[in-house]
Parts: sequence; C-alpha cells; structure tokens
Amino acid sequence: MRVAIIGTGLVGASLGLSLRRLDEIDEVVGFDSDPVQLAVAVDRGALDSGAGSAAAAVRGADLVILAVPVSVVVDTAANLGPLLAPGTVLTDTTSVKARVVAAMRAAVRPGVHVIGGHPMAGSHETGADHASAELFVGATYLLTPTVDTDAGAYQRLHGLLARLGARPLAVDPARHDALVAVVSHLPQLAATTLMNLATDRAREEHAGLLLLAAGGFRDATRVAASNPDLWVEICAENRDAIVAVLDDYRERVGRLRSVLAVGDEASLRRELADARASRRSLPGKETMTGALVELHLPIPDRPGVLAEVTTTVGAIGVNIEDLGIDHAPEGGRGTLRLAIIGFKPAGRARDALEALGYEVLEQSL
Amino acid sequence: MRVAIIGTGLVGASLGLSLRRLDEIDEVVGFDSDPVQLAVAVDRGALDSGAGSAAAAVRGADLVILAVPVSVVVDTAANLGPLLAPGTVLTDTTSVKARVVAAMRAAVRPGVHVIGGHPMAGSHETGADHASAELFVGATYLLTPTVDTDAGAYQRLHGLLARLGARPLAVDPARHDALVAVVSHLPQLAATTLMNLATDRAREEHAGLLLLAAGGFRDATRVAASNPDLWVEICAENRDAIVAVLDDYRERVGRLRSVLAVGDEASLRRELADARASRRSLPGKETMTGALVELHLPIPDRPGVLAEVTTTVGAIGVNIEDLGIDHAPEGGRGTLRLAIIGFKPAGRARDALEALGYEVLEQSL
Repeated sequence: MRVAIIGTGLVGASLGLSLRRLDEIDEVVGFDSDPVQLAVAVDRGALDSGAGSAAAAVRGADLVILAVPVSVVVDTAANLGPLLAPGTVLTDTTSVKARVVAAMRAAVRPGVHVIGGHPMAGSHETGADHASAELFVGATYLLTPTVDTDAGAYQRLHGLLARLGARPLAVDPARHDALVAVVSHLPQLAATTLMNLATDRAREEHAGLLLLAAGGFRDATRVAASNPDLWVEICAENRDAIVAVLDDYRERVGRLRSVLAVGDEASLRRELADARASRRSLPGKETMTGALVELHLPIPDRPGVLAEVTTTVGAIGVNIEDLGIDHAPEGGRGTLRLAIIGFKPAGRARDALEALGYEVLEQSL
Repeated sequence: MRVAIIGTGLVGASLGLSLRRLDEIDEVVGFDSDPVQLAVAVDRGALDSGAGSAAAAVRGADLVILAVPVSVVVDTAANLGPLLAPGTVLTDTTSVKARVVAAMRAAVRPGVHVIGGHPMAGSHETGADHASAELFVGATYLLTPTVDTDAGAYQRLHGLLARLGARPLAVDPARHDALVAVVSHLPQLAATTLMNLATDRAREEHAGLLLLAAGGFRDATRVAASNPDLWVEICAENRDAIVAVLDDYRERVGRLRSVLAVGDEASLRRELADARASRRSLPGKETMTGALVELHLPIPDRPGVLAEVTTTVGAIGVNIEDLGIDHAPEGGRGTLRLAIIGFKPAGRARDALEALGYEVLEQSL
C-alpha cells in the first residue's frame, strides 16, 4: 500500500511517522509547498521520500491524505482530485468538514473514494520538527462517511487509523461541523472575548487589572493566543454553526446573569455543581481497556448502510475499534463486524442499531 | 513581633511557613476549627504552636491574619475583633473585599488597624498538606487601604509581604471587587456556562460530542471543576460587580456573533489579533529584575494620604516593592518613600502622583 501525504507539518509528518511503522504500508511519499518542512519531514523519517510536486506525490497512491490548512484544502483538492485513479482513497485532516468533503467529492473521478477526516489531536507547537508517531494514540479521530461511501474503502482507512492507536468515530459531515462549533470554535471565541474584555477594562479603568490574572484567567484565555488567520478561515468555513452556538451561549450567559441578579442560590449552585460533575468526568485521551466485544450485522446491499451504521454508533458516543466486512458467497448481502471495547458500550450500540431495524449478534472476543 | 493566623489551610499555613523565616517574626500562633488542619500546620512547621481556640491565638498578637473562607470571615471578624488590643493590625485573605473590610472595621475597637488583603496565589490543591513557603513569591498581593488607614500600620504589613517575595498592590476595596469580577469571577462563570452548554448538547444531540473535547476545550473549562459552595458564596458577596461584568461579556459575545453573521472578516481578524497580542503579553508571576528607583514625597498630615498615594500607583499597574515613612522632627509632615522596580514604571508613578499635586523626587538606588 502506497500513501501520499500532501502537507508535511505537524499532523502530516506525524501521520507519516506512525504509518511507516505499519507492515502493510510499503511506501509513504510526501510533498509540502514549503521545502524546509518537506526536508525536515524526510530527515525525521516521516517519509520514504519527498516528491518534487504534489502531482508527483499522488501518482500511483492508494491513499492520499491532504494534511494542509483549511484555507488551501479546497484548492488542493481541486488540483489533485482529477489526477487520482479509481480505487484511491482520498481523505483530509482539516477541522471543518461539510464544505471540504463536498469540494473533495466534486474534484474526483467516479470510483475515487472520498472520506473526510479530522484527528482530534494536536499541539500548541507546529511544524514537522514537533511531529510524533504517538500523536494519535488514544485520540479520537473523526471520519465523515456519507450515503455513498464505499464500505471497503472505509474499512481500509478505519483499520489503518485504529492500528495507529487512534479511536475512529464516524459522524456525518454537517453534524461534525455543529459539534466542533461547540467543543472547539466556541471555546476559542469565548477566550478571545474574555481576553479583550479584560484588556479594555485594564485600559479604561485600572492598569493594574491584569496583574491580578491568576490561574483561572490564564487557563480560560490560553487559546486566545492562537493564530488569527487560521481562525478567520475556520469561522468563514463554519459560520452558520458557530453563529447558532454563540446564540445559545449568549442566552445561557444571560440566564446565569438573571439567576445571580435575583439571588437564586439554588439555581446557581445547580449550574455550578452540574458543570463540576461534567468537567470531572470529561473523557480523556486514553487507550481504553476492557473486553473486546464484536457485533455482527447482516447488511443489505443498498447505499448508505455503512454511513448509517457507523454514524449511529458514533452518535451515542461509542468508538468502533475495528470494522470488517464479510461478503456472502452468493453476493448481494454481507455481514458487517464492529469491534467495541466494553460490554456496556457494545450493548448501547446494539440497542441503537436494533432500533433502526438491524439484526445484531453480539459476541465477546 | 507576634503573628496569629486563624485558618491554617493552604493559604494560612503557607503564610506561616514563609513568615517564620523572617528575623523580625518572634512567634507564629495559629488556630483552625478543623483540628487535623491545625495539627498538619504545626507538623509542617507553619506555626510555632497551635492554640486551643481562636480567642487564645489572637491574644497579644501584633498581626492577626484571618485566612478563613469567605463564607465565615465576617462571623470570625465579629467574634475576634473585640478581643484585639489597639495597635494590632488585622488583615484577611479572602477574594472579595468591600463587605469583608467593612465588617472587620465594624468589629474592632478604635486604634485597631484593619487592612484587607487578597493574595493572587493559590493552587488547585487545598489544605495545610500542600502549603509552601514559596507560594507568594512573585505573586501580586492586593491590599485595600482606606481613607483612615494608618500609614505606619500599612508600612509594617506591606514590608512583611514584600519580604515574603510577594508584590503588594494597593487598591480601593470596592474597586478590588470590580477587578476580581473581571479576572476571576467571570472566567469561572464563563467556564461553567461553556461546560453546561456542551454537556446539554451531548445529551440532546450527540453523545459522542465530548469525545471531541481537545486541549482548547479542556483549558477553557478547567475551573468549572471548582467547589460550588465556595462560588455560591463569592457570587453572593460580589453580586453587583459580577452582574455588571456578565452584562458586558454578553454584549461582547453578541457583537462578535454579529461580526461573524455578516462575514465582517476585518473586524473578526482585529478581535482575534488583539486578544492574541494581549494574551501573549499577560504579566506572569515573576520576580522582576531591574533598577530599583525610589520616589520621595513630602506628605501632608491629613487622613487618606496613604490610601490615595498607594492606590493611585496601583491603578496604573505599578507594584510598590517597599514603602517607608520618615517623620519630620517638628511633626505634622513627613516623607513617604516608595521603592519601584524600573525607571519607566517609576516615571509613570511620578507622573500620576504629580498630577494629584504631590511633589515627587526621584532617586535611583
């Protein structure tokens, strides 16, 4: 299996480092528009070789990963998409999905398999210098299958990522964008707002104000130091979802303000206690341990089954550790196998799939 | 000099550990309503001895520090205030000041010197177990002198704290509460709101949502795990200031929402860039280095001069590293000496004081 990585910064080079450890990967070729990044990626062993151009890198690749910034991914897809041979899997690593997946799909010939990707792993460092083969271990890796995603292609990509130690989670592209608006884009804009409010107050009222900034303020504003260009792009790409989440947030701030203003201590205590309990039980980046349970589902031969099954399991917050497909000898039907860690999560997945009419057989491994 | 510390948790025991290192401190006695905390503080060397009661601890003390939670500080002051002899300095360590300082002043006899205190240092750990003599090194330590604060008493307390390595900053009690509403109380309530929004969305829409929580979300919600009881008390004590800041914050979130909704990228980029620049230049907890500059001010013998001078310097964000008073032999007037690190901050302090009509002489040490 031959992999091409376009964009060899932190994420691209980390994917190269970890993919090259797998037996099934014969070659990883890469390209970066910045020759320094490309040279560092080769030096660090993230690539077997650097290509002279993106077009040269993708030639003959079975898997093409666009690990470029969101601002250029659409153009990159438009340029490279037509060069890919049928059967190639094309994925990306950007943090918004609906428009990016649509652009990738529009750019490729029939038979090229587009599956959006978004690793929930990163670092405040950037560049191939800081790449690590361990970056994805235990991290949620979002995949966005759609109604016509090929099950075999999905299985190959899912399997590779799982063997890197990542925990794939399937989610619809539009749904993805609504979710990251909550967990990624809102925290950024809330931190920006808090930082600017404090700075303005310091300027207008009391220059000593920022001398009072202790740990809580520092934590709450840490991401405010992020790159403005990147965030302007992200906000443009995911505008509708972010605006909707900001409306929700603003309304909640207003409600809390009213609770305080009237001295409703019971409601205030409940808000604080709920948030504390949720924060304490926030799932971490960790490799799960527990019994591996396999669910077997006979699946009809109709489009969208793979996306429906995987995103249904994702929507109840359950990772699919591995995924396989057995085709019946007579064709037309097959069996999907999903490996899930833990009897409880597997039971919840089975219930959700049975509610959609699937027959599910559970088997512990 | 004899010090009494009431409440020997993290802050009280840390004060004990560091004060006992100073030559001028003859004895540190403490009391805690929790006998385990008191025993740990004695074991750790934070106290010369534990007293059998708070009343016994404060007997004969020159400095009494109420290092108890905000929920009990008013009652503690009411109980102990009448026992203090004229000349005693009474301070506290709670995070709200206007009402607490008023309560301390109402509780004491004439001649007892009340100066509110609030060290901007802490830890997510609590209790005497985690006390450290280094807790205050480089940390801003707010003091709230008022119009009738005795200059000599202020000088003694300021000097002690400076010799612990803390950086005293003077601020009016009501102003203090407005400032901490911005840098401490708003970050807490914003984190609580963000955490609850994400949890509700996870419950209502997509149980996988919290699996997507990466570093930005974790940082932004870290303080949401704080103790609800403590925060209900703080919100009650500082209600008006917090409500006003929440109004400002909500309005800014709304404005940012509009900027996004209309696609005003220039304004969005400016907001992001301003916040980034401010966050990157946030002053840290650090011991400053630079030339020590002394400002000499002849001061008239009228009430409020000490508070006016120190809070004016605090309001432009300049720490007074040390402070002394020379009394003229003929009485009636004296000279206040302020030690400030750096020529620029000293120049700004001089300008601000001259604008109030003080004659200021600058001298580098």
